[in-house]
Amino acid sequence: CWPCPSLCPPCRELSREPHLASSPRDEDLVQLLLQRWKDPESGLDSAEAFTYEVLLSFPSQEQPNVVDIVGPTGDIIHSCHRTEENVTGEQGGPDVVQPYAAYAPSGTPQGLLVYANRGTEEDFKELQTQGINLEGTIALTRYGGVGRGAKAVNAAKHGVAGVLVYTDPADINDGLRLPNETFPNSWYLPPSGVERGSYYKYFGDPLTPYLPAIPSSFRLDLANVSGFPPIPTQPIGFQDARDLLCNLNGTLAPATWQGALGCPYSLGPGFRPDGNFSADSQVNVSVYNRLELRNSSNVLGIIRGAVEPDRYVLYGNHRDSWVHGAVDPSSGTAVLLELSRVLGTLLKKGTWRPRRSIVFASWGAEEFGLIGSTEFTEEFFNKLQERTVAYINVDIAVFANATLRVQGTPPVQSVVFSATKEIRSPGPGDLSIYDNWIQYFNRSSPVYGLVPSLGSLGAGSDYAPFIHFLGISSMDIAYTYDRSKTSARIYPTYHTAFDTFDYVDKFLDPGFSSHQAVARTAGSIILRLSDSFFLPLKVSDYSETLRSFLQAAQEDLGALLEQHSISLGPLVTAVEKFEAEAAALGQRISALQKGSPDPLQVRMLNDQLMLLERTFLNPRAFPEERYYSHVLWATRTGSVATFPGLSNACSRARDTASGSEAWAEVQRQLSIVVTALEGAAATLRPVADL
Amino acid sequence: CWPCPSLCPPCRELSREPHLASSPRDEDLVQLLLQRWKDPESGLDSAEAFTYEVLLSFPSQEQPNVVDIVGPTGDIIHSCHRTEENVTGEQGGPDVVQPYAAYAPSGTPQGLLVYANRGTEEDFKELQTQGINLEGTIALTRYGGVGRGAKAVNAAKHGVAGVLVYTDPADINDGLRLPNETFPNSWYLPPSGVERGSYYKYFGDPLTPYLPAIPSSFRLDLANVSGFPPIPTQPIGFQDARDLLCNLNGTLAPATWQGALGCPYSLGPGFRPDGNFSADSQVNVSVYNRLELRNSSNVLGIIRGAVEPDRYVLYGNHRDSWVHGAVDPSSGTAVLLELSRVLGTLLKKGTWRPRRSIVFASWGAEEFGLIGSTEFTEEFFNKLQERTVAYINVDIAVFANATLRVQGTPPVQSVVFSATKEIRSPGPGDLSIYDNWIQYFNRSSPVYGLVPSLGSLGAGSDYAPFIHFLGISSMDIAYTYDRSKTSARIYPTYHTAFDTFDYVDKFLDPGFSSHQAVARTAGSIILRLSDSFFLPLKVSDYSETLRSFLQAAQEDLGALLEQHSISLGPLVTAVEKFEAEAAALGQRISALQKGSPDPLQVRMLNDQLMLLERTFLNPRAFPEERYYSHVLWATRTGSVATFPGLSNACSRARDTASGSEAWAEVQRQLSIVVTALEGAAATLRPVADL
Repeated sequence: CWPCPSLCPPCRELSREPHLASSPRDEDLVQLLLQRWKDPESGLDSAEAFTYEVLLSFPSQEQPNVVDIVGPTGDIIHSCHRTEENVTGEQGGPDVVQPYAAYAPSGTPQGLLVYANRGTEEDFKELQTQGINLEGTIALTRYGGVGRGAKAVNAAKHGVAGVLVYTDPADINDGLRLPNETFPNSWYLPPSGVERGSYYKYFGDPLTPYLPAIPSSFRLDLANVSGFPPIPTQPIGFQDARDLLCNLNGTLAPATWQGALGCPYSLGPGFRPDGNFSADSQVNVSVYNRLELRNSSNVLGIIRGAVEPDRYVLYGNHRDSWVHGAVDPSSGTAVLLELSRVLGTLLKKGTWRPRRSIVFASWGAEEFGLIGSTEFTEEFFNKLQERTVAYINVDIAVFANATLRVQGTPPVQSVVFSATKEIRSPGPGDLSIYDNWIQYFNRSSPVYGLVPSLGSLGAGSDYAPFIHFLGISSMDIAYTYDRSKTSARIYPTYHTAFDTFDYVDKFLDPGFSSHQAVARTAGSIILRLSDSFFLPLKVSDYSETLRSFLQAAQEDLGALLEQHSISLGPLVTAVEKFEAEAAALGQRISALQKGSPDPLQVRMLNDQLMLLERTFLNPRAFPEERYYSHVLWATRTGSVATFPGLSNACSRARDTASGSEAWAEVQRQLSIVVTALEGAAATLRPVADL
Repeated sequence: CWPCPSLCPPCRELSREPHLASSPRDEDLVQLLLQRWKDPESGLDSAEAFTYEVLLSFPSQEQPNVVDIVGPTGDIIHSCHRTEENVTGEQGGPDVVQPYAAYAPSGTPQGLLVYANRGTEEDFKELQTQGINLEGTIALTRYGGVGRGAKAVNAAKHGVAGVLVYTDPADINDGLRLPNETFPNSWYLPPSGVERGSYYKYFGDPLTPYLPAIPSSFRLDLANVSGFPPIPTQPIGFQDARDLLCNLNGTLAPATWQGALGCPYSLGPGFRPDGNFSADSQVNVSVYNRLELRNSSNVLGIIRGAVEPDRYVLYGNHRDSWVHGAVDPSSGTAVLLELSRVLGTLLKKGTWRPRRSIVFASWGAEEFGLIGSTEFTEEFFNKLQERTVAYINVDIAVFANATLRVQGTPPVQSVVFSATKEIRSPGPGDLSIYDNWIQYFNRSSPVYGLVPSLGSLGAGSDYAPFIHFLGISSMDIAYTYDRSKTSARIYPTYHTAFDTFDYVDKFLDPGFSSHQAVARTAGSIILRLSDSFFLPLKVSDYSETLRSFLQAAQEDLGALLEQHSISLGPLVTAVEKFEAEAAALGQRISALQKGSPDPLQVRMLNDQLMLLERTFLNPRAFPEERYYSHVLWATRTGSVATFPGLSNACSRARDTASGSEAWAEVQRQLSIVVTALEGAAATLRPVADL
């Protein structure tokens, strides 16, 4: 059993005050981390803060962002709330940042209101189809469907002048919207709650793509920065959204556009004559966000490996929150502090030191776009790429207390399974975390039968630069919902001023037992990765992924490709070669494990395991996708669940003639994947084979 | 003493027949190599041919390229030679490819002749300044000054319709041009000799940039291929050039444009009335080159390392020639065969096996643009990048027999010095190769005093993809001229049908003692790199390079940069940091060498040494320069001998205003170098330092 006392005290301390990136409290927490990690009784071998000068975005304190309804004479006849309601006494301080859309430009557009559902391309097309003139309108959209910034991008293409974003109770509160049904009476989002967030399209510091944001680095001219929303955008609570949406004029919105505000949603434009506002009233969105260069720090701490100090097991989470952030990120930071304390205590007693180095990281400015972790990977690209065994991310440790949820690349599956089979689940019954997990997320594996299913890694947290930019096997670990009990798209107070310690303590994880489960799981994984003689990365588990990508390509694209004289034959061969080489490597390892191999032999095999993920990187595969170089996990926009480059290229080529540039790109993407898989198979072969 | 018998037999066998890339004789040599490397008495552990399907360019056999002088009535009044004179009986066979400019497009331009010196941008500007209308002309140029293909690129910009290229006796023959002064009476180029060559701008297979040219790979549409000469181009001998040039009309060419054809060179256009051709005669250049997809093979052979088989010492040369290629490449291939035979014999006796693996490579289609080696690096990018200790290239082993000449990156300097100090020079006196070498090429090192000077690596042979694309420490080794005795730009029969065994035997290296010197040197370097416990790569020798680049930047760009508010301070800091970390690493190695370090400790240090060169790669630094990713050795076009990205960007920005895109690029390039140097320093630090 893992010696893990309650994670309650660190979570309470970390979430005591709002600690927005680069705020004084964020800086205090840098000091707190340094102090803990330098503690002579329970600290690490060394710890250091690394500071970057990065471009952040804040609302003006002097001139708050406002959303008003303006009557025909120019009078303000209604104003949305500027702040969330001070329900628990924690929503009102000066350090609670006003809800805003980070990186949305300032501006004061005013126009007739339309309702645009989730603000997808299809949604705006639908409005156009309905004959609604979007030019100069304000579009009210709800969270979900596409990324935050994409709503404004799509809107602007249709001439929309400003965008509002709210969270519908149907999407977050299982339909509940009344004060007595929401926090502090339940875990649901109060009517005034507003999700903040970064509306920047890419990740990393916006001014220094591919360069670390150290003070001397070249910075883009603001005019040359891409990825910010093109028009003013402001998030609001559903209480305000209700005032707007329930008074809209125009056609009734499609059934799938309806929500739980307690009224039928119409499309607009403008308000209906029989509603609360006169029919020719307009909505004014006044955004006064400011871009500021700020110092933001990562804190790094290391336990030096006893035998292979140049192999790093990297574990991290961000430190910055939007407000108090008891869940996001302090649930994860509490786990980070607890793990480092436990291992640090063992270390300082002098009784233990792992085989490989363990590096703990507290990232800065994640909420603005994974900035701290990205700058770190830019600064130490080669060193990290050459030496990092795996990256473990625990951001929000506990979304809810039903089950483990893991996202990761195939090589980490087996170590996660091994760890979770040996730790008791916090829930009812005497189940292991594994046995509990498999009840919630599972799949039928052709190799293993029914197993828990790992999700794939997008760009939702600091693992993104590690997997996509550096090609390091990565995972993200959390405890989460019983999906049969709630359809909330995320825990309801996400990025609001209601994400507080009491919220966690009362609703999310009373007793902090799910926090403990995550800490024990992550701790066990860290120990296995850092202390095993043979690295517990099972590269042959990639074969299932490749097979399923291949199958999807064959089934859903095969006929189309054949029409254009493109053969999947070389891809089939490459997948088969990978499978054979991965299996053979597994057998060589098993054989060696039975004997007493010398450390150099094992190191060579471990290098093959560690570096396999690197072979899937191709920095020239997707030149337009910043940082995305992993040919298996890059963003897939095409509908077929296959290799992303192939899927995306096919979806663009589908309606063009054979011989088009788009079909040439399909062939190029196919060759890129074949080359990557053949290269991967080559690295798995016995090292002295030609 | 290295057991190296005469290299004469292999050189004779290899150069017995012309072996143009993909020709039957080239295929025969593939079999010969395989047979040697699989020989049970003297072969390697294994050997294999890897075949690619690549785009080559050949003259038509049915319709030979011709250069004619056409009189005013359309009659051909003079024709240039289509083949070289059959002086030794070896210039006449059907396998002697007609002189041509590989990859020059077919076409039959005809126009007035002009003389354009070396065909540089400045040369054509000078003609323009002289008031010569270049539109529709044929430009006669001489080799040198710029790359082969650049002459046609520059010409086409001015409306020139066709280009002729010849080698001036002033540039290759120390001014001599008469048959009795040239081969077979001396080493000088006969009047009919023509330098063939690739006129392609980039390297690698033109249809598959960044992808291996396996049959299934995506291939560019010919219309999308860039880098071929834009207009028909044909090389001719100086005997033909004399007929043309000595009859030109127009102004006398500038003094630096004059050569050794025995007449004053005029600029044209057209012929002078009192010459051999009527004044209104034109020159017709008829080129019938054809692009063909051909199979070309690399042959790879390996000696498996006993202890660290996953560390490769890679040694290679190309196999294909233009004609017999006794010098280029057979002098190098003979060394390759001899080295592999000697090591193979030791191996098969069972008395020796190196610590690390040794990989021998015989590259295909180098003459067309380093194609075999480039495709190899594209196919096995990751495996090679992760595991290759160094790449050693011996292409033309012997240009002449005066002195060693080495090009390489700084980390290889010390191993070359160690090797050459212990081998006797073949020349007069009892000197080591090192002591002989230092008399011909030397420099004053702030660290070591007077030492032989290594040249830097361009893209002249197969080392190019290894250093520029993969970031592997590389070197190129040869014996060469006494520059006080000849000013020939290269050995005179280079790329002609006169590069034969007798030429080598009689003039270049009678007795093959310089071949032996190169073989002994390369062999000693291979053994040191593959068998030393600590890798003999001295990374601190990069400090001198960085210091000199920094100094050039400060002295020659400092004031300019300051005017534009750009500080070199961060670069100074980065260089200092590199110096300090490299020196400290050197001390740690020295300390360890005194004790008895365990193999894993040494492996970790060796990884730092091996991977240092990789830290200078940035695939996003020069997006327009295909394959060039090494921020220290990329092509420098700017005049200041500093970091190439900085030098080039400054030379483009120089005449633009502060705040221009060009000055932003200077800052970006400066940040790229600073990031690379800081990253390099970080990889040299103790591995458990943060």
